[in-house]
Amino acid sequence: MSDFSEDACTIALMPSGRQGQVARGTNLLEAARQLGVELESICAGRQTCGKCQILVEAGHYPKLALTSAPEHLSTPDGREAKYLDKHPLAAGRRLACACEVQGDLLIVVPEESQARKQIVAKAATDREIDVLPAVRQVYVEVQSATLESHGGDWERLQAALQAQWGLNALTIDPLALLGLQPALAAGKQAVTVTVWQEREVLRVQPGYAEGAFGLAVDVGSTTVVVHLCDLRTGAVRATESAMNPQVRHGEDLMSRVSYVMMHPDGTEKMHAAVIATLQTLAEQAAQATGITLDDIVDVVLVGNTVMHHLLLGLSPVELGGTPFALAVSDSIDLKAREVGLRLNPAARVHVLPCIAGHVGADNVAVQLAEAPHHSAELMLIVDVGTNAEIVLGDRGGVLCCSSPTGPAFEGAQITHGQRAATGAIERVRIDPLTLEPRWKVIGHPDWLAPGDVSARATGICGSGIIEAVAELFLAGVITADGLFREAAAARSSRVAYVGRTAVYVLADAEQSATGQPITVTQADVRAIQLGKAALYAGVKLLMQARGVAAVDRIVLAGAFGSYIDPRHAMVLGLIPDCALDRVVAVGNAAGDGARIALLNRLARLEAGQIARENTHVQTAVNPNFQTEFVGAIAIPHAGDAFPHLEGILPAPSADPIERRSARRRARPAAE
Amino acid sequence: MSDFSEDACTIALMPSGRQGQVARGTNLLEAARQLGVELESICAGRQTCGKCQILVEAGHYPKLALTSAPEHLSTPDGREAKYLDKHPLAAGRRLACACEVQGDLLIVVPEESQARKQIVAKAATDREIDVLPAVRQVYVEVQSATLESHGGDWERLQAALQAQWGLNALTIDPLALLGLQPALAAGKQAVTVTVWQEREVLRVQPGYAEGAFGLAVDVGSTTVVVHLCDLRTGAVRATESAMNPQVRHGEDLMSRVSYVMMHPDGTEKMHAAVIATLQTLAEQAAQATGITLDDIVDVVLVGNTVMHHLLLGLSPVELGGTPFALAVSDSIDLKAREVGLRLNPAARVHVLPCIAGHVGADNVAVQLAEAPHHSAELMLIVDVGTNAEIVLGDRGGVLCCSSPTGPAFEGAQITHGQRAATGAIERVRIDPLTLEPRWKVIGHPDWLAPGDVSARATGICGSGIIEAVAELFLAGVITADGLFREAAAARSSRVAYVGRTAVYVLADAEQSATGQPITVTQADVRAIQLGKAALYAGVKLLMQARGVAAVDRIVLAGAFGSYIDPRHAMVLGLIPDCALDRVVAVGNAAGDGARIALLNRLARLEAGQIARENTHVQTAVNPNFQTEFVGAIAIPHAGDAFPHLEGILPAPSADPIERRSARRRARPAAE
Repeated sequence: MSDFSEDACTIALMPSGRQGQVARGTNLLEAARQLGVELESICAGRQTCGKCQILVEAGHYPKLALTSAPEHLSTPDGREAKYLDKHPLAAGRRLACACEVQGDLLIVVPEESQARKQIVAKAATDREIDVLPAVRQVYVEVQSATLESHGGDWERLQAALQAQWGLNALTIDPLALLGLQPALAAGKQAVTVTVWQEREVLRVQPGYAEGAFGLAVDVGSTTVVVHLCDLRTGAVRATESAMNPQVRHGEDLMSRVSYVMMHPDGTEKMHAAVIATLQTLAEQAAQATGITLDDIVDVVLVGNTVMHHLLLGLSPVELGGTPFALAVSDSIDLKAREVGLRLNPAARVHVLPCIAGHVGADNVAVQLAEAPHHSAELMLIVDVGTNAEIVLGDRGGVLCCSSPTGPAFEGAQITHGQRAATGAIERVRIDPLTLEPRWKVIGHPDWLAPGDVSARATGICGSGIIEAVAELFLAGVITADGLFREAAAARSSRVAYVGRTAVYVLADAEQSATGQPITVTQADVRAIQLGKAALYAGVKLLMQARGVAAVDRIVLAGAFGSYIDPRHAMVLGLIPDCALDRVVAVGNAAGDGARIALLNRLARLEAGQIARENTHVQTAVNPNFQTEFVGAIAIPHAGDAFPHLEGILPAPSADPIERRSARRRARPAAE
Repeated sequence: MSDFSEDACTIALMPSGRQGQVARGTNLLEAARQLGVELESICAGRQTCGKCQILVEAGHYPKLALTSAPEHLSTPDGREAKYLDKHPLAAGRRLACACEVQGDLLIVVPEESQARKQIVAKAATDREIDVLPAVRQVYVEVQSATLESHGGDWERLQAALQAQWGLNALTIDPLALLGLQPALAAGKQAVTVTVWQEREVLRVQPGYAEGAFGLAVDVGSTTVVVHLCDLRTGAVRATESAMNPQVRHGEDLMSRVSYVMMHPDGTEKMHAAVIATLQTLAEQAAQATGITLDDIVDVVLVGNTVMHHLLLGLSPVELGGTPFALAVSDSIDLKAREVGLRLNPAARVHVLPCIAGHVGADNVAVQLAEAPHHSAELMLIVDVGTNAEIVLGDRGGVLCCSSPTGPAFEGAQITHGQRAATGAIERVRIDPLTLEPRWKVIGHPDWLAPGDVSARATGICGSGIIEAVAELFLAGVITADGLFREAAAARSSRVAYVGRTAVYVLADAEQSATGQPITVTQADVRAIQLGKAALYAGVKLLMQARGVAAVDRIVLAGAFGSYIDPRHAMVLGLIPDCALDRVVAVGNAAGDGARIALLNRLARLEAGQIARENTHVQTAVNPNFQTEFVGAIAIPHAGDAFPHLEGILPAPSADPIERRSARRRARPAAE
């Protein structure tokens, strides 16, 4: 306000600190808006929703040049008094929409009354997310039909939405239309309308209603995770997960593609299976939250490219061979019913975009959560799975690629490998002197040692095998080339030969659920070497493309990443050299990204920008990839320096014969 | 072209008569476009579709200042020669897209090569319809995916559609997306794309494909009619009709509304029933045309307001009582699958708008076909049914109303009444001297007289009862007030008394399929009087609102209108006075309107304008309506002059007692 007049009152709003003058008599909700502070309001000032609560700080504030007092607001009128009677507020609170400004005021806006809420994504970067969902609810009072009035109830609702909320050119979902007349009748012409993207009406409920929910869904090859969120507050109300039912048609992505190639109904079958699982998870989450499926009006889906295609009912066959053509890469908006989900009949689905044939919507979601494109530091993000997705970048640009690591990191193709489940060995330590092991199994709190039968292991999962191989190397049992040293058998009976194949006995028969000892074999070491070499070759390609020799920060994404000890990852050469405290695991970053896109419609635009602006580096037929791959088979690997491992690594093997034989046996993992 | 140069050639195009100059070497398709003549082309000049055929008129044309010769076009190149080889054209024809202009030319564009085709709607006004459908097919060649290319096949198709057809910002139906990769593979990257409103892709077919079809559907209370049209040529390829299956839940509209009031699943049941019938008719029409349901990509639906609501699955209950609120009045665009129709999976449905609670999309369609809003003459359009819909207007403005005529005109509530079906008496003549009848029955070509048993009547349909009552009046058997004259029984044994009720024996027992004589009773005469009085009162209200005493032209719409003799309609006082040759019956004008909206997307906008700009006159609670109704019970009726019936009408009855008693007994039909 530039001109000061006697009829002007000074208002300061906390915590934003905004301050200015408004005319005496101004409605406080309006006054806050004039000063740039949006208060929450669903009922548009009708003293119905109680969302615009504020508090007056009484006192003299010289710095603000005002003296604030509760009496500087008009006394509660009939309508507010009626509301307060029914819904007692915390002491001193008022409904801003019911108050007139009568003097200077210092107003405190409690967090729940701030229209733009923020949630903190549980990501490495602790990103704050504005809650600005694609779907919101508004309350309107609709003119009654008369004999003279032209137009139908929908046209009258449109007029009310335009007059009371400024919503123009709306359409209504044909199934939502079915609920319009009953809602108007039950609500005596007052209804709450759920609107998508300020464009389409999804639901009409009688009277004042509250509660619009959404699902953030991450469909992984192995696990499906669903977060049920309150679209107004941003709060996660329930999280449910289940095994991806497609696993029965193939453990890894390529075997699912093969399944479709061999079964004409394979796409439809796997589509129906994953949708049925999502349906069950949605129902569980709704039940846990005490809401109905009708209250779920928005969904964000992410997944790798094969999951993405199967979610949409698209054949993934083209993704199985060069040039790995996606059917569609841009984000997709559709109806939940169009993919077979039974939520609110008009519920929307937003599918995040993909970047390339093997860099999917899950990776876009990871980038949305970790935001390398906003980072001043050069970030390396590694999402390990059957296909590792690797991202390298900062605000100057982001590169990405995928690398065929094979399923070893998920415990497949390992002699005693298994998925990360109760009973699996997940951590391993080997005494460098005695070569005696210690380990932890999932579901049991304590470290176990030989002879301890308080928990029996069922096998080794990905993180366990990685630590085992790294520890075997650190203990000098295997060479930098991954070969068991013949001398090691002399040091301990834990190293044995089965025929001509060396094994390390991790858990004895009595400590195993199978009754067989759990061992790490030469073949297991080789499988891990191939996987980590593929991963590292991808990392190396991106670093070459970017022209850097080191990164500032490493983010391990995905459930698997959470269980790897950064030290062991670096000892193995899974990741390049970096200060160990700059390596962080962020868990399900793809799920975080899905949640961000669910709660903030601008994040959906940002996701599109990420997908368009990423530079995708092709690995599959890149000759450099082969070179880097072969060079990365050693532990940590040949050529690169790992100063941050100084003092941890043993002296490199000097035996050139061992090194050569290792190279000869190494084969790239299947593409 | 303003500047003449030596390198310019003069081109004249027939039949449009457009003429101008183009640069030598210009492609002929492009040259025609420059001169404002659009030639049909699906393949965009690839010599694939053969749609742009033209003919060169050889000779010297002094008035056009040119000498035209076939040699003034470049000789067929390899691609055109190949096409001509496979598809021999009529003598002299060339593909415009393959020709270069090398000299002056007089080009004849055969009708089938004109891009803007016209069809003639079989309406009273013989309206010409530009074929400009909402859905069209385009052929494109799509860049192959490469390892380097960003984006998916859909993004590549979008780029091709933009580059080759200027189509921007397209979306694709999620079910159409499923067909994209298989079509690209089968068509070796060439596909034919079906596009709706230049906005959404509905279908992708491999290679060059032809054939996009649509359904124009008129859902009447009694009959459902489906026209299958070729969307490119505008031709009606098949017409199928069936009884509306909702009839089992109530013959007339209000009994269907009552059915919903009494049965919670009534809406869903009647919705499903009519959709199932539409599905069957669509399948029959497709089979008759030799196409598949997949080829049907667009539908236009019209019907009265109750049918409109039931088609959409909306409850019609609000239409059953004041203020007769429509759930929605504007036109609606949705997917066929959303109403339960299984055509092409992505097929669209367009529902024309309604005007008021009892003036539905069928009436908008009638106005689209008969175009009173473009008429210089004042037109009265009467669509007779259980609810008559009445339109009065010209290009200065259009008024409309509905009037509750009751079901008598459809043969219901008439002693021997029946629907218009084989065996029904549809025409009646009564000799004014002998009172002997003659009649025609549906399905038999000859007039029948007493004693003739070559066809047996099953009852009397609407047109039969109207003629019978009019003829009874003209023969002096009944008075202007509709009462049987006691004296008539003395003139002929055909007039008899059953108890105290007078009847006229139309067909004797031996000529009746039921073995009972077919009679017209005093109650039948009364029912027709009530119906026609309601109809006339509606007409009169519109004429009063418009401030006119006469109309220039009367259009009888609907199947029923086709069977009424205008003379008898006027004798009865169904319609106001008008020169008899200015009264025309136009049959299913609503179906014509649906077809127009199917074939021309601009007509859909025009329909919206009609709905918005009509002035709706309320009859239901209008006190004038009651006054007019009572005044219109007499035959033709009290007060108004019918100069065009001079010499036909008998002298008015002078008996005031008869007239008064008639009035006392008359009751308005139920609203």
